Amino acid sequence: MASLPTIRFLQQPTSSAWVEQALANIETILLDHSHCERKAAGVALNLIFRYPSSAKLVRSLTAIAQEELQHFEQVNQILECRGIPLAPLVPPPYGATLNKQIRRDEPDRMLDALLVSGIIEARSHERLGLLAEHCPDLELAKFYRALMASEARHYGVYWTLADTYCDRTAVMERLEALAQTESEILSTLHPQPRIHS
Amino acid sequence: MASLPTIRFLQQPTSSAWVEQALANIETILLDHSHCERKAAGVALNLIFRYPSSAKLVRSLTAIAQEELQHFEQVNQILECRGIPLAPLVPPPYGATLNKQIRRDEPDRMLDALLVSGIIEARSHERLGLLAEHCPDLELAKFYRALMASEARHYGVYWTLADTYCDRTAVMERLEALAQTESEILSTLHPQPRIHS
Repeated sequence: MASLPTIRFLQQPTSSAWVEQALANIETILLDHSHCERKAAGVALNLIFRYPSSAKLVRSLTAIAQEELQHFEQVNQILECRGIPLAPLVPPPYGATLNKQIRRDEPDRMLDALLVSGIIEARSHERLGLLAEHCPDLELAKFYRALMASEARHYGVYWTLADTYCDRTAVMERLEALAQTESEILSTLHPQPRIHS
Repeated sequence: MASLPTIRFLQQPTSSAWVEQALANIETILLDHSHCERKAAGVALNLIFRYPSSAKLVRSLTAIAQEELQHFEQVNQILECRGIPLAPLVPPPYGATLNKQIRRDEPDRMLDALLVSGIIEARSHERLGLLAEHCPDLELAKFYRALMASEARHYGVYWTLADTYCDRTAVMERLEALAQTESEILSTLHPQPRIHS
């Protein structure tokens, strides 16, 4: 898994415009990051609910949900230390647009859901890496660096699950199509600063 | 919190008929227990989604969701060791009937949701205690005993949250009504063996 190139998940790298937008609005990015971790835990748990008999999926995604909740807690502690109140935040179109690509009928539904999650994790990994590299706030840079390893592991897990439950050729073809869509969504910077703007 | 009597949550103790049913069907009870832990994590996470600005609720329920996922993992390991495959299981009417008691409009909705979760945790605590006491399988008895402390803590947390966000008199009145309903649901043993049959 470690050798799977990120490029299979991400067809286009993040633009420098996103980095500038994020660093200029780091408090909003922190709050959005909290929402992202919570949503990622929710997605993993929903997949466990939907496929309760798939032992490997249940085991892997339980571990992912636990880690996402740990990160959620960590981001929330940073928010609290900085006096940034928890609050709802209008999400960017990224997640909803990707979710619309998930086909309705099985086994396509499972394949698409796993790959969409894998792609989102891969993009999060890339963007947290950019924040780790460019954020002038050293405490935050360190925090982002600490999260990167597990984000990378997560997209590996989603890929492995797709490859476990679905045909390899179908996985590769679908991954390419979804990764293409994902890069298209991000090709225009969303005006509101978000992890996936 | 430790001094809050369980009886405020549970108006009637579990019958010996339930204990007999559970011990005679311990593999089904184990599988249902797995579903219960997963659902409990889901409920905590859903409340975090619904009240994202309530910092104390978010903090407390993140911890609960993490613990439920740990228990879910532990039960699933026991299932795996015993060669019991993960599988869906038709739930007893308990959860759905209690959820129907949750009023639709805020702030009633939050109060009811917290109390219903607290009551379910209190009942789980009571029943896992009975299994710990009566289960002839010592490994399982030890496992159930180990879970009891956190189940007790969980209903304490739900009570504290209700008391934090809602008027004390309203909390006590509503708790009594919901606890009454809960005991009525369980007054007839559900024919299928479940944690909440």
